[in-house]
Amino acid sequence: MSTHFVKKFSALRAIGCVSQQLRAAWSCYSTASLVEPQAPSVKTAVPGPKSNAMKRDLDLIQNTEVIQFFVDYDRSVGNYIVDVDGNVLLDLFTQIASVPLGYNHPRIVKALTDPANLSAFANRPALGMYPPAQFAKSLSETLLSRRERGGKPPTQEEIETSLLNTPPGCPKLSVLSFKNAFHGRTMGALALSHTKWVHKLDFPVPNWPLATFPTMTYPLEEYADENNAEDARCLAEVRDRIASAKKAGQPVACIVSEPMQCEGGDRYASPNFFQGLQDICQEAGIALLLDEVQTGAGATGKFWLHEHFYLRDPPNLVTFAKKMLTGGFYYTPDMRPTEGGRIFNTWTGDPSKVVLLKAVLDVVKEEQLLKRATDTGNYLMKILMDAQEKYPHLLFNSRGLGSLAAVDFPDAAARDKVVQKLRSQGNIRNDVNDTVDIRSIHVGLCGTRSMRIRSTLTLEKKHVDVFADRYYAVLKGM
Amino acid sequence: MSTHFVKKFSALRAIGCVSQQLRAAWSCYSTASLVEPQAPSVKTAVPGPKSNAMKRDLDLIQNTEVIQFFVDYDRSVGNYIVDVDGNVLLDLFTQIASVPLGYNHPRIVKALTDPANLSAFANRPALGMYPPAQFAKSLSETLLSRRERGGKPPTQEEIETSLLNTPPGCPKLSVLSFKNAFHGRTMGALALSHTKWVHKLDFPVPNWPLATFPTMTYPLEEYADENNAEDARCLAEVRDRIASAKKAGQPVACIVSEPMQCEGGDRYASPNFFQGLQDICQEAGIALLLDEVQTGAGATGKFWLHEHFYLRDPPNLVTFAKKMLTGGFYYTPDMRPTEGGRIFNTWTGDPSKVVLLKAVLDVVKEEQLLKRATDTGNYLMKILMDAQEKYPHLLFNSRGLGSLAAVDFPDAAARDKVVQKLRSQGNIRNDVNDTVDIRSIHVGLCGTRSMRIRSTLTLEKKHVDVFADRYYAVLKGM
Repeated sequence: MSTHFVKKFSALRAIGCVSQQLRAAWSCYSTASLVEPQAPSVKTAVPGPKSNAMKRDLDLIQNTEVIQFFVDYDRSVGNYIVDVDGNVLLDLFTQIASVPLGYNHPRIVKALTDPANLSAFANRPALGMYPPAQFAKSLSETLLSRRERGGKPPTQEEIETSLLNTPPGCPKLSVLSFKNAFHGRTMGALALSHTKWVHKLDFPVPNWPLATFPTMTYPLEEYADENNAEDARCLAEVRDRIASAKKAGQPVACIVSEPMQCEGGDRYASPNFFQGLQDICQEAGIALLLDEVQTGAGATGKFWLHEHFYLRDPPNLVTFAKKMLTGGFYYTPDMRPTEGGRIFNTWTGDPSKVVLLKAVLDVVKEEQLLKRATDTGNYLMKILMDAQEKYPHLLFNSRGLGSLAAVDFPDAAARDKVVQKLRSQGNIRNDVNDTVDIRSIHVGLCGTRSMRIRSTLTLEKKHVDVFADRYYAVLKGM
Repeated sequence: MSTHFVKKFSALRAIGCVSQQLRAAWSCYSTASLVEPQAPSVKTAVPGPKSNAMKRDLDLIQNTEVIQFFVDYDRSVGNYIVDVDGNVLLDLFTQIASVPLGYNHPRIVKALTDPANLSAFANRPALGMYPPAQFAKSLSETLLSRRERGGKPPTQEEIETSLLNTPPGCPKLSVLSFKNAFHGRTMGALALSHTKWVHKLDFPVPNWPLATFPTMTYPLEEYADENNAEDARCLAEVRDRIASAKKAGQPVACIVSEPMQCEGGDRYASPNFFQGLQDICQEAGIALLLDEVQTGAGATGKFWLHEHFYLRDPPNLVTFAKKMLTGGFYYTPDMRPTEGGRIFNTWTGDPSKVVLLKAVLDVVKEEQLLKRATDTGNYLMKILMDAQEKYPHLLFNSRGLGSLAAVDFPDAAARDKVVQKLRSQGNIRNDVNDTVDIRSIHVGLCGTRSMRIRSTLTLEKKHVDVFADRYYAVLKGM
């Protein structure tokens, strides 16, 4: 061997290479084939004794009031979630709508155990400064207001005042949001959220313009005129709020809306309303941000809910999270910052989540899950409509799109009773360590009297049949 | 086999169990032993041609102005980072101070490839509602203002106004911060940050009280009187700002400070100052939040920097991230929310990061890394002080604590030149595909004219010797 070769070889050994060294060791691995249960089953009330004991332990560390039950994530498979008491529930709420393919999906497991991905999990980079080699490619495969100053570079006064939080560097601008909207908990997002006092009380957030989101009357085809009038009334109010804010010296820079208000009660608005909203924004030079955190990633049968609106132009900004596995946003080219470091933080995202997202998007494409979400959603809507026809005093406004569905009850008490019975009522045998075949269905709540269904994209008609069977049984007993 | 047994067995099979099925497959795995290089080496300028090409690609997707170089995370080991051009740099900035044990640490790799941890990576839960079984234990092993209303439940008026962002539900409270502070980019955190216009310009953040953080004069022992007077002056100003805010109807609910201002220029303040600040807070019933994002997790040789202050009581809130691998905060019992859902979001953290954090904390304890950070830090400080003595017109205010260190230059130009030369200057041979043994050191910047060192907790004296050698060589050439 030449000295040159030895030197190069030693350098390679010295540097080391995680994936090369692990590839051999891991080559024995092949994706375990996990089997989804045929049906749910409960052994105990939900939450059961083990969940309750764990809740008492955790309560020593933090407030646990909203905990539903403790989960055995190791045993949860596909559309079925298994709690620590061994109860197996069909999960139609899926971690607040954040599970795209179901629990322990083999493709997610494969991505996690692929040695080529190991360093993405082991070394979280400061992406804005030191990205990995394949980062542009990885972004392309997965994710892809300086207007007031007229695009001019900042003056010395603007630079100095910006550091002191005073105008002109820190201008008095505002963001318009809608009643019943929910956008998050950090200060800016909280200022735009208006669903529950428990989110808001005592927090000093800016008092920005607030407009009314349309309330649709169902069935839509019967109330077309009323709904058109509601759209017009709400759009006029938006115009009015924009004018008032300008007059008050706090002009609107951006309008933020969910394409469908989820936490606020699964409140849909028409394509007509959103087209009008975009018209208003474009006329006034206001950015339109659509918050697709809960509605994106294929949940509605299209990749984004706003694709159902047929807007003339794309929204200026779209935010996402939940089923996308990582939080983020995308934007029109005019929104791109001209200076470096304007949109920045230490980690600027997490490439290990992009590894998993790639697996999700590949499966969505290969298995045509958008089409499946549409088909399964239509099948579910038929069940919900049929039940509503059969129980007209108990069920109202059944509505949905793809994997999202909701139905209203006369009041919160009736809703909560149905949801509780769907989850755990039946012929429970606490004393025997054996399962009893009972339909046990996990769904969510929203608004004041709505039941909310948020399934994975892998839900099939057979799962809906399981739901339908139990739904009718519970309704019959009410 | 009894029918009973068959039934139970089938149920177990049907449910599946990820870890059981994978444990056998993965038993062949043992942690690859990666070898840290003996010394840095550069082949090309840094950033090299491959980094520059990748930057051009990524720039089609996003602003890339602050990208330093692209990294081969697969080949980076311990305290050495390898860029995509094959340059091997001693990393003394470590992803903006966020790498606790170095790249591809075997214990991190072990945690990642342990089948028992797989489901934590595959199934990100909504922790606030559906935590996994071992969550309280895992928290105990790793992480562990309603005052104005006097703890009373909210009135109907408070509930309604909170949803509209108006008093009394949304009160006019403020948070006091310090000049030169940096706390983050979301709206509330940005209101408390005052280092660079590029972070702030055009964003409408609240104009809350702002006070002066002490400027220490070095060497500290020579300027004890001056520094005491500076502490007193700054504390008096804090008192004054609190009184003014109250008079203006926007009382201070919380004071937020870094225990050492990092981004602002590695500005230390005395234990005396922070003890005085806590006194002021306790007298006025104001919460004290210390932001330990960059200074915590053992970086200073104690677990939190504020332990060096010997405060009478713990701070009310402490925030962390970076070397803790997950963002979060801890708090005194009186800060615990009384209602469920007050502090909440979909994921409420990421248990897969807690898996890695446990590995980090285990290694910190087993290998006594706090002591090592202290020892290595003292050794480094001696080098920095000696160099400052030798180059008194070029180097000022060498200062540090554990793995954190900084030195000032006459101006940004001199600083930037030294940092650039540390990184890549030398006898570079671009035309030959071979390494040339050149000391190549990666450090960071802060403030207007400071060089910032942020090493891992695993840095040893041998690494400091490599740095010292190159530091002197560069200073000699200035």
